[in-house]
Amino acid sequence: MATIPNIIRVGHGVFYVTDLEASRRFYVDLLGLNVLHESASALYLRGNEDREWTLKLELAPEAGIKHLAYRVAGEGDLEALVALAEAEGLPWRWESEQDRPKLLRLQDPFGTPVAFYAESVKYPWLLQRYDLHRGPGLQRIDHVNVISPWVQDTLRWYTQRLAFRLTEYTEDDEGRIWAAWVHRRGGVHDLALTNGTGPRLHHFAYWMPDSASILRACDILAGAMQTDAIERGPGRHGISNAFFLYLRDPDGHRIELYTSDYLTVDPDFEPIRWHLNDPRRQTLWGARTPKSWFLEGSRLEAFGGGWVELQDSELQGLPQHVI
Amino acid sequence: MATIPNIIRVGHGVFYVTDLEASRRFYVDLLGLNVLHESASALYLRGNEDREWTLKLELAPEAGIKHLAYRVAGEGDLEALVALAEAEGLPWRWESEQDRPKLLRLQDPFGTPVAFYAESVKYPWLLQRYDLHRGPGLQRIDHVNVISPWVQDTLRWYTQRLAFRLTEYTEDDEGRIWAAWVHRRGGVHDLALTNGTGPRLHHFAYWMPDSASILRACDILAGAMQTDAIERGPGRHGISNAFFLYLRDPDGHRIELYTSDYLTVDPDFEPIRWHLNDPRRQTLWGARTPKSWFLEGSRLEAFGGGWVELQDSELQGLPQHVI
Amino acid sequence: MATIPNIIRVGHGVFYVTDLEASRRFYVDLLGLNVLHESASALYLRGNEDREWTLKLELAPEAGIKHLAYRVAGEGDLEALVALAEAEGLPWRWESEQDRPKLLRLQDPFGTPVAFYAESVKYPWLLQRYDLHRGPGLQRIDHVNVISPWVQDTLRWYTQRLAFRLTEYTEDDEGRIWAAWVHRRGGVHDLALTNGTGPRLHHFAYWMPDSASILRACDILAGAMQTDAIERGPGRHGISNAFFLYLRDPDGHRIELYTSDYLTVDPDFEPIRWHLNDPRRQTLWGARTPKSWFLEGSRLEAFGGGWVELQDSELQGLPQHVI
Amino acid sequence: MATIPNIIRVGHGVFYVTDLEASRRFYVDLLGLNVLHESASALYLRGNEDREWTLKLELAPEAGIKHLAYRVAGEGDLEALVALAEAEGLPWRWESEQDRPKLLRLQDPFGTPVAFYAESVKYPWLLQRYDLHRGPGLQRIDHVNVISPWVQDTLRWYTQRLAFRLTEYTEDDEGRIWAAWVHRRGGVHDLALTNGTGPRLHHFAYWMPDSASILRACDILAGAMQTDAIERGPGRHGISNAFFLYLRDPDGHRIELYTSDYLTVDPDFEPIRWHLNDPRRQTLWGARTPKSWFLEGSRLEAFGGGWVELQDSELQGLPQHVI
Repeated sequence: MATIPNIIRVGHGVFYVTDLEASRRFYVDLLGLNVLHESASALYLRGNEDREWTLKLELAPEAGIKHLAYRVAGEGDLEALVALAEAEGLPWRWESEQDRPKLLRLQDPFGTPVAFYAESVKYPWLLQRYDLHRGPGLQRIDHVNVISPWVQDTLRWYTQRLAFRLTEYTEDDEGRIWAAWVHRRGGVHDLALTNGTGPRLHHFAYWMPDSASILRACDILAGAMQTDAIERGPGRHGISNAFFLYLRDPDGHRIELYTSDYLTVDPDFEPIRWHLNDPRRQTLWGARTPKSWFLEGSRLEAFGGGWVELQDSELQGLPQHVI
Repeated sequence: MATIPNIIRVGHGVFYVTDLEASRRFYVDLLGLNVLHESASALYLRGNEDREWTLKLELAPEAGIKHLAYRVAGEGDLEALVALAEAEGLPWRWESEQDRPKLLRLQDPFGTPVAFYAESVKYPWLLQRYDLHRGPGLQRIDHVNVISPWVQDTLRWYTQRLAFRLTEYTEDDEGRIWAAWVHRRGGVHDLALTNGTGPRLHHFAYWMPDSASILRACDILAGAMQTDAIERGPGRHGISNAFFLYLRDPDGHRIELYTSDYLTVDPDFEPIRWHLNDPRRQTLWGARTPKSWFLEGSRLEAFGGGWVELQDSELQGLPQHVI
Repeated sequence: MATIPNIIRVGHGVFYVTDLEASRRFYVDLLGLNVLHESASALYLRGNEDREWTLKLELAPEAGIKHLAYRVAGEGDLEALVALAEAEGLPWRWESEQDRPKLLRLQDPFGTPVAFYAESVKYPWLLQRYDLHRGPGLQRIDHVNVISPWVQDTLRWYTQRLAFRLTEYTEDDEGRIWAAWVHRRGGVHDLALTNGTGPRLHHFAYWMPDSASILRACDILAGAMQTDAIERGPGRHGISNAFFLYLRDPDGHRIELYTSDYLTVDPDFEPIRWHLNDPRRQTLWGARTPKSWFLEGSRLEAFGGGWVELQDSELQGLPQHVI
Repeated sequence: MATIPNIIRVGHGVFYVTDLEASRRFYVDLLGLNVLHESASALYLRGNEDREWTLKLELAPEAGIKHLAYRVAGEGDLEALVALAEAEGLPWRWESEQDRPKLLRLQDPFGTPVAFYAESVKYPWLLQRYDLHRGPGLQRIDHVNVISPWVQDTLRWYTQRLAFRLTEYTEDDEGRIWAAWVHRRGGVHDLALTNGTGPRLHHFAYWMPDSASILRACDILAGAMQTDAIERGPGRHGISNAFFLYLRDPDGHRIELYTSDYLTVDPDFEPIRWHLNDPRRQTLWGARTPKSWFLEGSRLEAFGGGWVELQDSELQGLPQHVI
């Protein structure tokens, strides 16, 4: 039996954006992410706690997602991933990014472009340089969420092959899973899978210090006359119990500000089941979710170039609690 | 010229409720208002800062509002109000309530049942008895909001006859006022007037210590499976800049939890104008307002008994930013 | 009998500072006050809600306080103040400051330099320009606190001559008043008087939006390695029930960040008495107060130039709850 | 080479208390911990997120600590611990507690009574039953802190034998370690070791949802006239960056309320070094620490009964930043 690679946590995202200055205004000037490196065609950003860049914005003719990356424990885990890719016939190759010279990029069986790295250049954090924090104070990368027409299969693959652990899931009356939250690092999730036309990126999330900082994000966007960037929230999720806010960047990429979930380190942790139509699932307070939140997402780059082909889900229809 | 009565602040509301135990569960058990007095047919409630009861719930066959009351500076101000009523032909009489033996009830020219008192029995406050606070911690009465088909006329009467002062207003392109906020005590409002079929009570508001306590109200209602009580928010108003949440009690009476507006004591304070269709007016963050919030309200008791007859407004249509 | 002038609220302070760049770093870069005007020798600052400047920093060879100013309702109130000064033999003269062409400066009977103005140029506020807020977000001027060896006499003069109203006071077993809080605008105080060698300025206070913003002030100062600027707190006062933090500026002038006191508009509001040695008086949570907080203050400019002569108080000794 | 047991996280503490009703008043009525089980001689308490009891208060003639317990991954890890105890000659035995039928109690080489369990009866959590939360809302067990005269040796043993990982430490100019923070579950610590006469328990900590809830704990204790229970804080630690408050229970056991530290899951996480006399180490804001916090702690029960004998540390003297 193959060695299971030891994935530590979600590590970064690389977003294609079409107007780097508009993106800088949104992510840096308004949200306060810190620029660790920049060039004419890219910005490398991080939260106040991040010791490495966690979001790269790369200028491109069309918006989309280049890949989503995970940090693994060591070199051996990269080799285990290569072995897995070979065994399953998944396309893979070595790439590199700034500060991460050895990046294993592969395509998961569902078409999602993922990457893995064991080493990254670390920089002094800014967590205690509160005098340098700007905007609402995004703290650290938290998770990614992928829209998939095959949530159940994807869930099985990530839990069996990569040892992700399930914390919460949404099920309908027929026992079909519409969404799942899985983690590696002891929180609610590094990765969420939600049903829909895909695969696409649903959102990319940063941890916030507290709910007050999330309210401040709303105020700042309103002050800058950017209320259109606020798609959903603020509110408390039923799932994860986290306090949240969803934003859309200038290219439509969805960003979640997220805080205060719970610990999941116990080996006998029992996953929490939610019924698809429980109004408290999406927002514990019962607020309805806008349709755009269910229907829109970011395209993913295909391994060989171009965009991953989209497929509709067999699970059709929206939950009832939608605006 | 007649003496203008010196009104200090909004003082209390008397609500007719149809199930006192259901109301107690909502106001006392969940929202944490304090019971100052109670009988088989009434509850007298107050916030943690209130030194007197500020909300009376009175058991009745049908839900509605008995009256809204204001505190005046002294006996002479009650006499000035009687003189005003006589001069304008407004029906008036002396009534009494628990702790307020001399309550001048009159009907304003628009049908709203209002009452005035100069003296009230005071009780030690609970503000610093944090060990006794329950629920989210409602602090003190803040304001009332009346739906009216004659906002402009009502505004004129309250500012000219009772010396209320205008702080903010909503206007359409034709210069017609759809809503107005007026005060006596140096905050944004003791009384708000909003356009619609009326006169009816739109809502009754308590001041909260901070936005965190308003979020806690949502969590508590969700914990108790009472998410249906949450009608709108939480969010920040454009108008008043306050952080808010709107709830509906078991009889449908609307309660606002409200905090953090601004000072308006300067005599040359210039009222703030908002355009009817400015999306940041209702919620600074641009969130849409549910239709029920615009359309529903509580009936008012007529001076001679029964309910005040409702009249539609000539200003028809809802603002654009509605769900 | 003389007309009592109608004072609206505390209006501004003018501080002499010895290093304008050091002051700018503290007030503007770290605390986030907004520069409304500046010259080579002065900065005119305001909070996010202030529609006019509320703190002027004036470069001078020695640190001290030029004057503390109050806004009055109108021209007639300035005349009433002149009449009062004449009647009591208090020195007075007309001065002017930026935006306030007509400033009545007088010396109160205890030596404190006070000024009054009825008109001031107003500017658009920044309250809802959250995108422009910096630092912890100081909101508006709140109050001033004067150290006096004659608290009881000063209290009598301000309440009798200027109609300030008492809200709280500290008394010892012999019924001697050691401190008093008086207001004009319906909050806990525009002016506080505390016992000690004086007259001197004890502190100058800004209102904050909430306690979270006060914690952020601590974090920002710590991030900038300016922890020495934090003298006392954060904590909740027993007196006023406000959440507070005391800072010292580069010249030692003491600034309070203050939020969440209570309403005092009722004409029959009964002042709250605290015993001198009640440990919850200074900080409701019982924390001890550093000696510097009791002993140090800023010198006041004398009417004729130079500094007001200091006098020790007959009330000697510190409260017990001191570090 | 011996198998290293897989410790998941700190699991519980058992405290001897001398007045169960006084303890209940403190932990249940004021702090709002939930009673999961109770008998005439014991209370089993948990936070709102805990799915099992995390603090047992056991009535005893004298106050002290029976043991501190850790959750391990499985039965095999208990066996590995027995093997370790046998190999090192550490006294051990099987015990049981309510819900934890198989508890391995052993004495670590430094005299500390520790216990380990792999299974525990789980109960539905109360995290989303916000309507049932009381007091400030203690959320879950976070860590324990042991005072030791042999911090460096103890640190070596826990990291080498039990694979705890170092996150932060305090060092003097001679390179001697005065304190260390070690974890198993990806936060800053499950266990802290601080220099002093010991071994004793320094404190036992619960995670709080946010800093606002920690401020509320202060308010509640003040409201109940229990300010003597507040020993230190609130404030932000330099070490851990957490927001904190230290309390003393009726027997003097020290409880920390703690929130918002950071993630430490990266395998190449580099421990953070603090100089002993850095004033921002204890409290980022520079506040001084009371002597009692350095000098006082709870006695530990010896394996054979009675109390573990205390030994002074060779590292004498307090840090400079002490009241």
